[in-house]
Amino acid sequence: MAIQRRKVSVIGAGFTGATTALMIAQKELADVVLVDVPDMEKPTQGKALDMLEASPVQGFDADIKGTSNYEDTAGSDLVIITAGIARKPGMSRDDLVATNSKIMKSVTKEIVHHSPETTILVLTNPVDAMTYSVFKESGFPKHRVIGQSGVLDTARFRTFIAQELNLSVKDITGFVLGGHGDDMVPLIRYSYAGGIPLEKLISSDRLEEIVERTRKGGGEIVGLLGNGSAYYAPAASLTEMAEAILKDQRRVLPAIAYLEGEYGYKDIYLGVPTILGGNGIEEIIELDLTDDEKAQLDQSADSVKKVMEVVQ
Amino acid sequence: MAIQRRKVSVIGAGFTGATTALMIAQKELADVVLVDVPDMEKPTQGKALDMLEASPVQGFDADIKGTSNYEDTAGSDLVIITAGIARKPGMSRDDLVATNSKIMKSVTKEIVHHSPETTILVLTNPVDAMTYSVFKESGFPKHRVIGQSGVLDTARFRTFIAQELNLSVKDITGFVLGGHGDDMVPLIRYSYAGGIPLEKLISSDRLEEIVERTRKGGGEIVGLLGNGSAYYAPAASLTEMAEAILKDQRRVLPAIAYLEGEYGYKDIYLGVPTILGGNGIEEIIELDLTDDEKAQLDQSADSVKKVMEVVQ
Amino acid sequence: MAIQRRKVSVIGAGFTGATTALMIAQKELADVVLVDVPDMEKPTQGKALDMLEASPVQGFDADIKGTSNYEDTAGSDLVIITAGIARKPGMSRDDLVATNSKIMKSVTKEIVHHSPETTILVLTNPVDAMTYSVFKESGFPKHRVIGQSGVLDTARFRTFIAQELNLSVKDITGFVLGGHGDDMVPLIRYSYAGGIPLEKLISSDRLEEIVERTRKGGGEIVGLLGNGSAYYAPAASLTEMAEAILKDQRRVLPAIAYLEGEYGYKDIYLGVPTILGGNGIEEIIELDLTDDEKAQLDQSADSVKKVMEVVQ
Amino acid sequence: MAIQRRKVSVIGAGFTGATTALMIAQKELADVVLVDVPDMEKPTQGKALDMLEASPVQGFDADIKGTSNYEDTAGSDLVIITAGIARKPGMSRDDLVATNSKIMKSVTKEIVHHSPETTILVLTNPVDAMTYSVFKESGFPKHRVIGQSGVLDTARFRTFIAQELNLSVKDITGFVLGGHGDDMVPLIRYSYAGGIPLEKLISSDRLEEIVERTRKGGGEIVGLLGNGSAYYAPAASLTEMAEAILKDQRRVLPAIAYLEGEYGYKDIYLGVPTILGGNGIEEIIELDLTDDEKAQLDQSADSVKKVMEVVQ
Repeated sequence: MAIQRRKVSVIGAGFTGATTALMIAQKELADVVLVDVPDMEKPTQGKALDMLEASPVQGFDADIKGTSNYEDTAGSDLVIITAGIARKPGMSRDDLVATNSKIMKSVTKEIVHHSPETTILVLTNPVDAMTYSVFKESGFPKHRVIGQSGVLDTARFRTFIAQELNLSVKDITGFVLGGHGDDMVPLIRYSYAGGIPLEKLISSDRLEEIVERTRKGGGEIVGLLGNGSAYYAPAASLTEMAEAILKDQRRVLPAIAYLEGEYGYKDIYLGVPTILGGNGIEEIIELDLTDDEKAQLDQSADSVKKVMEVVQ
Repeated sequence: MAIQRRKVSVIGAGFTGATTALMIAQKELADVVLVDVPDMEKPTQGKALDMLEASPVQGFDADIKGTSNYEDTAGSDLVIITAGIARKPGMSRDDLVATNSKIMKSVTKEIVHHSPETTILVLTNPVDAMTYSVFKESGFPKHRVIGQSGVLDTARFRTFIAQELNLSVKDITGFVLGGHGDDMVPLIRYSYAGGIPLEKLISSDRLEEIVERTRKGGGEIVGLLGNGSAYYAPAASLTEMAEAILKDQRRVLPAIAYLEGEYGYKDIYLGVPTILGGNGIEEIIELDLTDDEKAQLDQSADSVKKVMEVVQ
Repeated sequence: MAIQRRKVSVIGAGFTGATTALMIAQKELADVVLVDVPDMEKPTQGKALDMLEASPVQGFDADIKGTSNYEDTAGSDLVIITAGIARKPGMSRDDLVATNSKIMKSVTKEIVHHSPETTILVLTNPVDAMTYSVFKESGFPKHRVIGQSGVLDTARFRTFIAQELNLSVKDITGFVLGGHGDDMVPLIRYSYAGGIPLEKLISSDRLEEIVERTRKGGGEIVGLLGNGSAYYAPAASLTEMAEAILKDQRRVLPAIAYLEGEYGYKDIYLGVPTILGGNGIEEIIELDLTDDEKAQLDQSADSVKKVMEVVQ
Repeated sequence: MAIQRRKVSVIGAGFTGATTALMIAQKELADVVLVDVPDMEKPTQGKALDMLEASPVQGFDADIKGTSNYEDTAGSDLVIITAGIARKPGMSRDDLVATNSKIMKSVTKEIVHHSPETTILVLTNPVDAMTYSVFKESGFPKHRVIGQSGVLDTARFRTFIAQELNLSVKDITGFVLGGHGDDMVPLIRYSYAGGIPLEKLISSDRLEEIVERTRKGGGEIVGLLGNGSAYYAPAASLTEMAEAILKDQRRVLPAIAYLEGEYGYKDIYLGVPTILGGNGIEEIIELDLTDDEKAQLDQSADSVKKVMEVVQ
């Protein structure tokens, strides 16, 4: 039997989607199909072609195709959803949720139709609710519908800690639970520099500042850019999760997973530590929480639930 | 003596500059300083921070700093200039040249002041003339002022050939002389698939079409994007040249080099095959040309000369 | 459907086999099973474990298992045969051929039994005849039984040329036909530095010396080591071919392929330019040869035929 | 000023030394000089040439030179010592120490003479005492003489834990103090899977078994190989330390460092957590130990002291 390359489709060819497509191709993880709406087909093709033209120089073999036709996504091993609108001034949060939820449903219908066996990774905000929306629409088993937030949140946290201690980013780890951004529940006691708990290296006041900066990490970039939001670190985060799945690595990574009793919650998508591998979410890791952590996680779950109600 | 990381400054934090900064950091070639004008300092910082936040996930150790202050570039081992404006509708070519030439001069003054021993790599269009402008302003020896065009032109050519033959991009090579884009002089007889001359694998008519597509390669992307121009492949090309210099690899790469009699030209920057290493351009390789090739190269040199006159 | 890792079995856990196993694992191309005879099972397990213990430091996820049990190879996507004895003082060439041919047959029986759909890559010397032996025993279609020699021969040639010209190895290519080592038929006119034909850069006398050194390249290493033969470059060569197949890259690489009329030969395994991809040998590339080249290739084919007769 | 490649010399061209040379070259960290005694010069050249012949295939640009002449090491940025004999049956430990200590002194004299500004990394066993011997002989400041043991010990530990939990090696960390092998003091409470303390995931009995297996990790490989000792994981460990220094990464890595009061010890080389960067050991990290850990470390220090007495 001939060996075939993996295939990944990235839905949404904005900066995050395009950068994710490039990173996946650079690592030769798969051929990539970059999809956007018909109105944006030409720019999507332009980005794909520009990336492809980088391939001889960077030495990677991967097709990158820009399209608005979902037939091109047929038989994907993995689909990554970055499509959706950003909140604009004057737009209520509920309007944002309603609009993106509609997009999720329409996109998911197409994905399921063309790749019924695929795994779906969701980035679109508000990500917990959007992942839930994709899950419901897809009818997929829970392990094959996954949201991204914790890899990015910890990436920011690790960056700030590496700067604080002037150490290699390779040796800093972080740990979060719960929702994305403001709703993030950091587990400082599980965060380390070279294996040494951060609490032994940084004062609790300073750590709290860094946690707070991490919570507002997306907003910090938005504030600096003036016009647009972060895409390099989000794309790197999606790529790491994609790699764990495509190479069946059984990585321990935070992911937005469907809970059926874990941590005391039901019928909700929430950020928890998981094992990511060839089956998507292979396992949810349950940890004992302190009362304070549990209270924070309850609050995070409440926020998510409220948004999810808008979705349904 | 402590070992220190290399330092690269990228001038111009548009898409090409930013992508170049990221690619250099991803390869851990150097710490990177990304510079733009004061008005753009915050977005520049935003891009740099977003990239840095990708570093723990991608596992690279490199500082990336966004700034508008040239003092931050002090002691750079290499400076890459991507700054400049793109031609807008209604703008004459001479206006474009005049504006970008002014930018080159002002940028070069700063570079030379803060990094008198550095090497400068220029991308800004029209690149032959802009490299000449930087050369004149810098007072640097010729081997330390270099323009990029051939790596990108051949990258596009190689991509099209790989698609045509359905082969790995790793095994396709191309060869060009002369100016960028329309003025490009392809040496088809020095272009191969797996070492086999392309002329043996593709009809000359089809090859001519592919050459023509390569010539218009920048325009093809502009046409597709609708709003903006290519940046992934240009950034990859700059990064490959930077790597050759920073790792003293003595790569054989096409570069825009100052000629003092080579190929029969004097006092001109023109695309020729070079050896790139720790000294910048270590050597210019002179080839015998056919009459037809020489005629094409003459025409390319004429075009460049005309633009250079506007600069002076 | 869960995504599973590729699986490669390497038969023969000597230096070349072990180094190949490590290189495949380092690139995360597949999980690796390293197989040797029962008497060598413990050392084979020791090597595999030592490699595995390098994985956390080098950051690769791949199982590496040492075994003497072919059941462990079941379902391999690719099998690489490095098993066999080296010629000892006093041993006739025919004895060597007879012994290794017996090994090929016994090994192939096991491979076919446990991985009926796999592709087989052969390194054991004399490699043309041994590949033929594996082909016959396996009953596999010809595209799934492949021998290695040209990648290694050109690697040596490229190394010597890079030294001669003081250039990056990345920009040197070489091209050979025919048998391994002494029987190698170099196509100098298809060998380049940065795309420039070597004949324009190096005198023909000096080139002939370098070709001669390449022909004797295996012997040069044997002579220096005193006790044993080359394994780093052979392992790198096998790994490149394995990568082309496992990632379906459609690389243009020289390989020992079964000919059915190509180049005027029939029922023989001989080194020719091929396209390697997910199907193994996807295509054999036929080139026009000069009379001299054809005469050399005839001689090479004659040598191979003579050895093949011993096999049958 | 021209940019020059880094230079690393590896003393001792046995399996560990040779594999380290290859790994450093593959990562393009530096040009490599591989040194052995005059009697072994030819095999050393053979290994170096074989590695170099892998470079075109693997795409790395680095010189690798085999030699017995220390003049070739002049101006090294880093020197790695793997030279020395292994303990043979019937040889007392004191004889081993005396012999290897003599080798350290003679090697160090040469290194210091030809590279007075270099940093030295020691692998030779018994490594704590041998590092001390090199330190004394060199007259170098303490931060520039460093021993390897903890990176290897934790690599083995991490491998066993990854197998136990069936998780990616990328997410397992370990932490050790004290001497190599039997004298290793594991800090289980600072060892994690995905940031989760191992004690929460594995029973203490099973953890103790894994620690014990780690302590005997070198012996396990020796037992399996029958003839020789581990070299892949030791070489990977040396390479990681070398990379931290050559790229000034400020990694948090365990290293054998000279203590002047840290952890309550003086004038001893002992395994402790350090920050490795462009200055060699940039900092020693002091941790609070439990009484039990401190007692184990005392015992480890005693063992080292006893061996050091033989050296002096």
